[in-house]
Amino acid sequence: MTIVITAWDRSPDGGMGLARDTRVRWALEEVGRPYEVRLVSLQSKQQPEHLRLHPFGLIPTYEEGELALFESGAIVLYIAEHHAGLFSDDAHARARAISWMFAAVNTVEPPILELVTAKFSEGDKPWAAERLPLVKDRIRDRMIQLSARLGDADWLDDVFSAGDLMMVSVLLRLRPSGLLDEFPTLAAYVARGEARPAYKRAFAAQLAINQRP
Amino acid sequence: MTIVITAWDRSPDGGMGLARDTRVRWALEEVGRPYEVRLVSLQSKQQPEHLRLHPFGLIPTYEEGELALFESGAIVLYIAEHHAGLFSDDAHARARAISWMFAAVNTVEPPILELVTAKFSEGDKPWAAERLPLVKDRIRDRMIQLSARLGDADWLDDVFSAGDLMMVSVLLRLRPSGLLDEFPTLAAYVARGEARPAYKRAFAAQLAINQRP
Repeated sequence: MTIVITAWDRSPDGGMGLARDTRVRWALEEVGRPYEVRLVSLQSKQQPEHLRLHPFGLIPTYEEGELALFESGAIVLYIAEHHAGLFSDDAHARARAISWMFAAVNTVEPPILELVTAKFSEGDKPWAAERLPLVKDRIRDRMIQLSARLGDADWLDDVFSAGDLMMVSVLLRLRPSGLLDEFPTLAAYVARGEARPAYKRAFAAQLAINQRP
Repeated sequence: MTIVITAWDRSPDGGMGLARDTRVRWALEEVGRPYEVRLVSLQSKQQPEHLRLHPFGLIPTYEEGELALFESGAIVLYIAEHHAGLFSDDAHARARAISWMFAAVNTVEPPILELVTAKFSEGDKPWAAERLPLVKDRIRDRMIQLSARLGDADWLDDVFSAGDLMMVSVLLRLRPSGLLDEFPTLAAYVARGEARPAYKRAFAAQLAINQRP
């Protein structure tokens, strides 16, 4: 059955790959599954037909026959469960990869989302400059611990998994701020993710949409 | 095999059930599995033996024989996959429940965590009062959409699932702020969760720890 995902018609990042459809594209490329993309505009995201698919009017969504999913983490997990390439055959390793998927979105990403909010929603507020270092320090707390855990390993749990796919995707959001480069271990980890052929194809596909006239 | 989870020796909320071990206790109670608890103090959370279990020095963790997991979302998912009671037998319904689990922790919880940070980390800052309404409005945006989606249904996808367990747990964090009661549909949804016998047992167990002398 054909897989159809949604992505922004024009991503707010202009094609840097930070919109969450990139995570799903990457997962589909890792497992070698073709997909189609339906574009959603910022104007149409609150239309009933899109809200039926995504209750919060966001992207990505995932449709395959009768199945309709939302949330990049859930979609990546579904792809990883149904195709070889993103989860180990070992049940414990698979459960640990899911721990890392949730750590990416619920422990590492929230302080990063605060930085995004501080910049784009509160960048013009009188407290913006004084508050920014506090927000960055909360991110650094997580990065110090993640960096210590990764150590000199290539991936978080031996071999590349959906856990690394999600963590690298979350960390990529830090590059514009310069925070990623403060942690050479994590910058190299992210670079290993970006060097994967599947990531390159996913990145190129979202860039092409954002660069069309 | 014995299941051992970790919880705070003294929860910062004093036993209101907002610490994340409550989510795991609730899941274990729903599926009828006994468990033991190892308490972690705020002083010992950065010790190597705890960081080995939880790379970010947080709770809960989950141990069962050789298996060691962290992140409440991942642990609840593992429990739901291995015991009846939290996932439908239907594969599509199960995948949708996982969408709601990720929506709870990655779309609904991040703005709620901002409110927690605004109160406890920045409550004494000069911008605290002026910034608070902005933080609350970002939460309301999500609540409006979640409330519209739930409508007059009891649960997010027909029958109670691990998705509801996670969403109710996240929404509970809003009660102290008064924001939950602004949305009667969601307040009633949370109350349905709290009324479940399994939730009551989980809540009582964490309260007992926090109320001991």
